[in-house]
Amino acid sequence: MGEDDRLAERAINTIRTLAMDAVQKANSGHPGLPMGAAPMAYVLWQQFLRHNPKNPQWPNRDRFVLSAGHGSMLIYALLHLTGYDLPLNELIHFRQWGSRTPGHPENHLTPGVETTTGPLGQGAANAVGMALAGAFLAEHYNRPGHEIVDHDVYALVSDGDLMEGVASEAVALAGHWGLDRLVFLYDDNEITLDGKASMTLSEDMAARFAAQGWHTLTVRDGNDLTELSSAIRAARDHRGQPTLICIRTIIGFGSPNKAGTSVAHGSPLGEEEVRLTKAALGWPTEEPFYIPGDVLEHYREAIQAGNQAEQDWQQLFAHYQAKYPDLAEQWQAGQAGQLPADWDAEFPIFPEGTQIATRNALGEILNAIAPRIPTMIGGDADLAGSTKTLIQNAPHTDAGVAAARNVRFGVREHGMGAIVNGLALTRGITRPFSATFLQFSDYMRAAIRLGSLMEIPALYIFSHDSIGLGEDGPTHQPVEHVMSLRLIPQLYVFRPADGNEVAAAFRTIFGLAGPAALITTRQNLPTLPNPERVHDGAKRGGYILAGDDSLPDVILLASGSEVSLAYEAYLVLTEQGISSRVVSLPCWELFDEQEEAYRQHVLPHSCQKRVSIEAGVTMGWQRYIGTRGIALGVDRFGASAPYQTIYKEYGLTAEAVLQAAKRLLD
Amino acid sequence: MGEDDRLAERAINTIRTLAMDAVQKANSGHPGLPMGAAPMAYVLWQQFLRHNPKNPQWPNRDRFVLSAGHGSMLIYALLHLTGYDLPLNELIHFRQWGSRTPGHPENHLTPGVETTTGPLGQGAANAVGMALAGAFLAEHYNRPGHEIVDHDVYALVSDGDLMEGVASEAVALAGHWGLDRLVFLYDDNEITLDGKASMTLSEDMAARFAAQGWHTLTVRDGNDLTELSSAIRAARDHRGQPTLICIRTIIGFGSPNKAGTSVAHGSPLGEEEVRLTKAALGWPTEEPFYIPGDVLEHYREAIQAGNQAEQDWQQLFAHYQAKYPDLAEQWQAGQAGQLPADWDAEFPIFPEGTQIATRNALGEILNAIAPRIPTMIGGDADLAGSTKTLIQNAPHTDAGVAAARNVRFGVREHGMGAIVNGLALTRGITRPFSATFLQFSDYMRAAIRLGSLMEIPALYIFSHDSIGLGEDGPTHQPVEHVMSLRLIPQLYVFRPADGNEVAAAFRTIFGLAGPAALITTRQNLPTLPNPERVHDGAKRGGYILAGDDSLPDVILLASGSEVSLAYEAYLVLTEQGISSRVVSLPCWELFDEQEEAYRQHVLPHSCQKRVSIEAGVTMGWQRYIGTRGIALGVDRFGASAPYQTIYKEYGLTAEAVLQAAKRLLD
Repeated sequence: MGEDDRLAERAINTIRTLAMDAVQKANSGHPGLPMGAAPMAYVLWQQFLRHNPKNPQWPNRDRFVLSAGHGSMLIYALLHLTGYDLPLNELIHFRQWGSRTPGHPENHLTPGVETTTGPLGQGAANAVGMALAGAFLAEHYNRPGHEIVDHDVYALVSDGDLMEGVASEAVALAGHWGLDRLVFLYDDNEITLDGKASMTLSEDMAARFAAQGWHTLTVRDGNDLTELSSAIRAARDHRGQPTLICIRTIIGFGSPNKAGTSVAHGSPLGEEEVRLTKAALGWPTEEPFYIPGDVLEHYREAIQAGNQAEQDWQQLFAHYQAKYPDLAEQWQAGQAGQLPADWDAEFPIFPEGTQIATRNALGEILNAIAPRIPTMIGGDADLAGSTKTLIQNAPHTDAGVAAARNVRFGVREHGMGAIVNGLALTRGITRPFSATFLQFSDYMRAAIRLGSLMEIPALYIFSHDSIGLGEDGPTHQPVEHVMSLRLIPQLYVFRPADGNEVAAAFRTIFGLAGPAALITTRQNLPTLPNPERVHDGAKRGGYILAGDDSLPDVILLASGSEVSLAYEAYLVLTEQGISSRVVSLPCWELFDEQEEAYRQHVLPHSCQKRVSIEAGVTMGWQRYIGTRGIALGVDRFGASAPYQTIYKEYGLTAEAVLQAAKRLLD
Repeated sequence: MGEDDRLAERAINTIRTLAMDAVQKANSGHPGLPMGAAPMAYVLWQQFLRHNPKNPQWPNRDRFVLSAGHGSMLIYALLHLTGYDLPLNELIHFRQWGSRTPGHPENHLTPGVETTTGPLGQGAANAVGMALAGAFLAEHYNRPGHEIVDHDVYALVSDGDLMEGVASEAVALAGHWGLDRLVFLYDDNEITLDGKASMTLSEDMAARFAAQGWHTLTVRDGNDLTELSSAIRAARDHRGQPTLICIRTIIGFGSPNKAGTSVAHGSPLGEEEVRLTKAALGWPTEEPFYIPGDVLEHYREAIQAGNQAEQDWQQLFAHYQAKYPDLAEQWQAGQAGQLPADWDAEFPIFPEGTQIATRNALGEILNAIAPRIPTMIGGDADLAGSTKTLIQNAPHTDAGVAAARNVRFGVREHGMGAIVNGLALTRGITRPFSATFLQFSDYMRAAIRLGSLMEIPALYIFSHDSIGLGEDGPTHQPVEHVMSLRLIPQLYVFRPADGNEVAAAFRTIFGLAGPAALITTRQNLPTLPNPERVHDGAKRGGYILAGDDSLPDVILLASGSEVSLAYEAYLVLTEQGISSRVVSLPCWELFDEQEEAYRQHVLPHSCQKRVSIEAGVTMGWQRYIGTRGIALGVDRFGASAPYQTIYKEYGLTAEAVLQAAKRLLD
């Protein structure tokens, strides 16, 4: 073994021992993966990954995604060692309150972490999204001799990742699109949390990926640095397909008694075994978190290399800027997250007295934005004809075609959600969107939740809200979904009542840092009176749609398709000399953020006689109407029939609102 | 063409025209699939499917699952034609209020429909569950020469089904287990709702399935009855593996202008095109819902054949009964859904003053039930070590091993949920269960919803509730999940506060017709005082845990791990001479079903000073505490740290309850 080899081995063992020590100290975590996968990570980071530890946001960096997020100590070790802003003290406080080293990697906490992983399969799918973003940005910005976008995306994936359906969906798409800047390093360690992987896994993974359009390679010995290096190089250089490298590793490598077993997976090795492992690796046994000086120096070369790489790129960009000033300006605005000043200049105003399904209003608005923000991309799960989310006069993805504004995901909602998250994690892509029926938000809920945790600017569009869907029946009628989305922290949920509320929702959403869900109807809705007031009110999440400023006898609250029913009831009440008010609540999260005085103005404490109507479960409305109010809604599954019939049979009518109001007033 | 061939062709065209007519009359639906897939359905039902139209519940019937539920008219036509209790009038009222022919098939509405489908991928996975159930029941009951369980499971699947991750997960398991009584007929029509399937799908499906352990066959012409028949026979007879038959069909076959295009997929053909299609098929054009007399007679032979098949089986069963009376009795009880009288005789009682994590209490109870109900099976998504749901002294599934009480699903939550639904749809399997972390209920939510819609006796177990999970961090800490599950209609959600509430939950759940979710903690909880009262109270969903019957000044409400915090606060309040009451609410759905007087007794209107505490989102609690109560909870994402620290930092303490109570009393 030459000196370089010895240094490499010690550098790898540094990752292993840091992982063991941190997990041991926290008395919690997963040491086995970092110990087994340290060599592939070392080779990738030392020989291939172009990144700048001093600027984790350098746009053209290669991406590294640790999809198997439970192996978080692997990436924390790498980040610390290569010089990111993650001091050793953070590793020592692994999994502790206030540290930047949580149990699973969180990109919003830790510089250099590209995405939040842990729920398996998500990271793999995010990586597909990042590679798709790269392909789109390259196509959009690059000019011959001026390739300002040419980064690769690497994901380290585990058995568990590849068992998850969300990953399988994303893998199928990556193969279909031919995302050749994408490489999966599959940590094939034959062990899952509960035992041997063979107990639950007998797929021929390489054959499956090949069937899904991938190039596949195998590394028989995950400790063989030469073999690893050749495979990664071949993967990186392969064109036309993404590459899977199956790398046979030994979980918990180095541990004399636990290597290769599931006990090394999800628990600390134990102090004695840590000691034995260190001894076996030729490591000082009594010095936790030990990092040899020359190893640190070796890793820290990444700082100089990264700085150089970014400088070279800046130079490239300067030439680009000189030659293509408009594109360069667009690029810079995209990186800064700035919208063109006039991005919403062509928004339609929907006139009173007309009718439109909010999905159609959404389609019009989306297409009023699209020409002005050419980096807004997104797509649907085989339902664009229904969700109305196609960008007109723009190409769509297809077999071998990745770079297109209309991303056709096929019937793969979960993959779509996680891929859109990957798009949203890539600066320069503007407010990427997904679209499907609201019913299928259930399929992609785990991805929506992670988008919310990360606070990324994704837009999840859902059409075919509620029983208004009609004949497709209860399997397709989302009655609990709106409320269920409202429960997710940091997610803004919009259920607009007409086209002008849709416009207000768009204006609001494009100003948010984080994600939003936007829910539209299949059926036509009347445009509410006073479009301007509606629009401005909706931007506050909730507002007085009808009724004067005096204290009403009863307040009628509603969202979305039921606002017009409340308004109808209001007209009758007014005619009958009863003072009432209609409050439209298109976005609860936004309304709850308004100052107390405004909320009091809209919903004064002194009027507790309140009726709510929404074509969904009533649980949750008590927040606004209390235990004494009457909540009209759908506390059961839907039915298959023309929607007008279902509304009537389910008691969601203006008449029912009227009766409820009168019951409260009696 | 011989006379038989002509009859067959007309029998197939009857399905096609019924489908066209029903969709046209409803002005809504999917005609294309039934028109393209009619030949494979005809061959399967006429030549292979053993079923008894007059007893859709005959236990040893073959199962037919229409996973592509949008093609519902296919199965409605088959059911009507073969003599099930589905009169033509129901087909005429396709998708109308009150009909038994909803937009997508619902097994609880329509005799002969095995499972509710529509959300794609679910039916395919249900079918895997049904085949797994068959394998288990065969292993458990069959004796040499006495094979009372030997039915096959056929699923008709579409492109969309196979694109869904949930199907991919289930397919991997079916191949792994070697479920050779399972056959997928893949309607490979190259068209999806939005256009050509090739736009989003370029997987080599046969190769993918082969990689996942399946036997694969191809039918080049989906109209060739001989080819279809040979393939289905070969599939049925193949041993050791499930079989996929890729059948090339033409969507909307027969329609001169729309066949083979996506416009035939999801919309009526239009009156003129219906006329043209009928003319092309040699069908009377002016008689909707026309069924030739000889065709009906031909199909109705299924009644006699089915009756004979069941009679033969009854004879077989009579011999079995004579030779194995105990097993036969168990079989009959299982079919009737009866539990052994003493099934809960060995439930532990958890004594006051002890501590136990509710996941461990669940493990003890599950294993107190298991020996007494040998047909209760279930399993976990690679987390049995954590969920504590392994049945002791019982085998587990493995490569080539399907029949085992411990079903190891691998990291495939969504597949698990849908497979457990398939188990629950098979009479004779008792209360099958799934188990994973509560966080991953998001992955399987669509399956839970369908289980709830179907009201099947599945038990979804979720451990590692809330921030009590500790160090794994926010990616693994479910804060909105309990409330989110409570929103699903017809699902009973249990969040027990100690071991005795877990026992009460089990006793209740095993008495329910429908599904339940049972949520347990990772961390230890103190056993609440007065175990008997706790147990009996919990069976009503909510009860007074502490405090006398007099009207209290303040009510403290809680569920699960926070009940003991409320109880601590109660002790201090009592000491300070303040009259309070603790209400434990382990199951809201059950509590809300109690009679008004009981609910008033527990939560009297006259005491509106109420504090709730639950380690989850507060939205929803206003149902019990109104707008004036104080809800302590977690309205943000969790954090990575030891759980005691998070509880403290998040203000979920007995002290916080005390302060809140005092604030209300001031």
